[in-house]
Amino acid sequence: MHALLYDGQLRLVSDYPEPDLRPGEALIRPHLVGICNTDIEITRGYMGFRGVLGHEFVGTVVACHDPAWIGRRVVGEINAACRRCATCLRGDPSHCPARTTLGIAGRDGAMAELFSLPVDCLHEVPAGLPDTAAVFTEPLAAALEILEQSHLRPTDQVAVVGDGKLGLLCAQVLRLPGCAVTVVGRHPERWELLHAQGIATLPAHYPEPGQWGASQPGAVRPAPGAERRAALPEVPAPLDRAFDVVVDCTGHPSGLAVACQLVRPRGRLILKSTFAGTMPLNLSMAVVDEVQLIGSRCGPFVPALRLLDRGLVVTEPLIAARLPLREGVHAFRIAAGQLKVLLDPHA
Amino acid sequence: MHALLYDGQLRLVSDYPEPDLRPGEALIRPHLVGICNTDIEITRGYMGFRGVLGHEFVGTVVACHDPAWIGRRVVGEINAACRRCATCLRGDPSHCPARTTLGIAGRDGAMAELFSLPVDCLHEVPAGLPDTAAVFTEPLAAALEILEQSHLRPTDQVAVVGDGKLGLLCAQVLRLPGCAVTVVGRHPERWELLHAQGIATLPAHYPEPGQWGASQPGAVRPAPGAERRAALPEVPAPLDRAFDVVVDCTGHPSGLAVACQLVRPRGRLILKSTFAGTMPLNLSMAVVDEVQLIGSRCGPFVPALRLLDRGLVVTEPLIAARLPLREGVHAFRIAAGQLKVLLDPHA
Repeated sequence: MHALLYDGQLRLVSDYPEPDLRPGEALIRPHLVGICNTDIEITRGYMGFRGVLGHEFVGTVVACHDPAWIGRRVVGEINAACRRCATCLRGDPSHCPARTTLGIAGRDGAMAELFSLPVDCLHEVPAGLPDTAAVFTEPLAAALEILEQSHLRPTDQVAVVGDGKLGLLCAQVLRLPGCAVTVVGRHPERWELLHAQGIATLPAHYPEPGQWGASQPGAVRPAPGAERRAALPEVPAPLDRAFDVVVDCTGHPSGLAVACQLVRPRGRLILKSTFAGTMPLNLSMAVVDEVQLIGSRCGPFVPALRLLDRGLVVTEPLIAARLPLREGVHAFRIAAGQLKVLLDPHA
Repeated sequence: MHALLYDGQLRLVSDYPEPDLRPGEALIRPHLVGICNTDIEITRGYMGFRGVLGHEFVGTVVACHDPAWIGRRVVGEINAACRRCATCLRGDPSHCPARTTLGIAGRDGAMAELFSLPVDCLHEVPAGLPDTAAVFTEPLAAALEILEQSHLRPTDQVAVVGDGKLGLLCAQVLRLPGCAVTVVGRHPERWELLHAQGIATLPAHYPEPGQWGASQPGAVRPAPGAERRAALPEVPAPLDRAFDVVVDCTGHPSGLAVACQLVRPRGRLILKSTFAGTMPLNLSMAVVDEVQLIGSRCGPFVPALRLLDRGLVVTEPLIAARLPLREGVHAFRIAAGQLKVLLDPHA
């Protein structure tokens, strides 16, 4: 079958073996698969993954030992857990140390004509929800993980740094409890959907994900003064340290530098980005200002499907392009720095 | 001026003295004033209040020492705090022990042609928001107080007991972080707006607020078995103790009994009702099942105005009637057990 493979380089193969039907799993024919920044980071070395890429999908179950699943349209959680270890039994399967992760670690992903996932990971898509919205369930769940982990109060002033795919989803989610949300980003052409939802925006400068080279130890927490101002030339001074909660969705060390400037003493800094390499972070900031750093990854699918089904989060304006899987290598080239590029494995 | 007074009995007076303009306060000409269950409870002895009723209002500032306020359309927080005591200085003015409360404690309310409130309590209403929506800011803020106090996770199963004015607002707010919300109530004719928002409903039986007599010590936590089933004959058994968070909005001891049945061990029971008299509550339930009881009162106005302004909460279907203030005594008679009755002091 056709599959988009990363084995040190990204390439489309036409003779990839079809997956076997394993106990407790389902074979899924994907309708659409989204390209995530994590996928792009994998092609830069993140996770050391080798295999078929793709973890954001909507598809139809075509084979399963449980016949009730066959023919159902599904989305799926990406962490395949053992369901037996202490981590799983305390209710944390997405942190199972023995887990494989779809298209990220130890398990081929969805950018193929067929792929396999445990039925425990599957969620049926509501009948009225189009594929083009359902394919956002996984990243929307990741945005909802912020609300799952951390108590965001309606009176909190929240900044989302980054107006990429994930930033636009996080901002939409964080306005729902009533929070005042400001998106700090580099793409005013994407802000119309934010303004329509009462979300404020501010321009800021940080490079595209993947456009930085070797780590620069001075880049993350500039000393106060001219250098600090220079990193955020267009953010008015009163916003400096003005936010109770700041979410970094930039995928970039200098985006995190912006986030560090915005968070108030005793505030919370939510880290949503995953990328290759280490971060030259000055942790004294966290100690002196008593800022909490909260790593945040995969989130709950059921509430994500509820919000999509009720139209409380919009996804249509987040789609930049839709291409057949056979143009996958080209799609990855144009996806960096763009909104969501969707692949259709059967077009 | 005309005013709706409670001085042991509820009556409309035509010669009530106009309030003086006090330092730090504003004189407000109300456009609309809502009747709250708390108002009805006051006429039954709650708080021992004597004076002009009314704390849910939208109006225009007609006099103020700060000219910037004059002519602005406002809603107002109801707790007038000293802003100097330890409680105020720790950021809790709504719990100031020296506070007066509009139409509830030590301060005449808004059911008059004119009333006074500190400018610190005022919030300007966004230009596009109609009076009929803005008048719900105070009760909507009270619903939002649940999210302000307590971390509701998107994966929480939430039950709201009571489909009255406050219950319908609480349910709408609690769906926004993605929670699955079920309203347990007695008024199927009010459920259309809930179903349109993906909120589930279940019928249950408990008396109208104000329709119970002397407290019945056995009523609150029936023993398991037949008596327990009898109290909730139409709630399927699997829902017993099935909810992570239960909000009691019934204003009634037997509504609280329903809420106690629905909350899971280690769950949270949010108490929103205020009413005259004491509650014969069996607190062993809270100890044995390790349930948290969380009292919840006034909430944040700014996020409430944001949600109203963005149309994330609907209020039009919550209006049962709109009457001139001069029909206020009649309005209170029809308001018990109804949705929101609004008074217009200048009609």
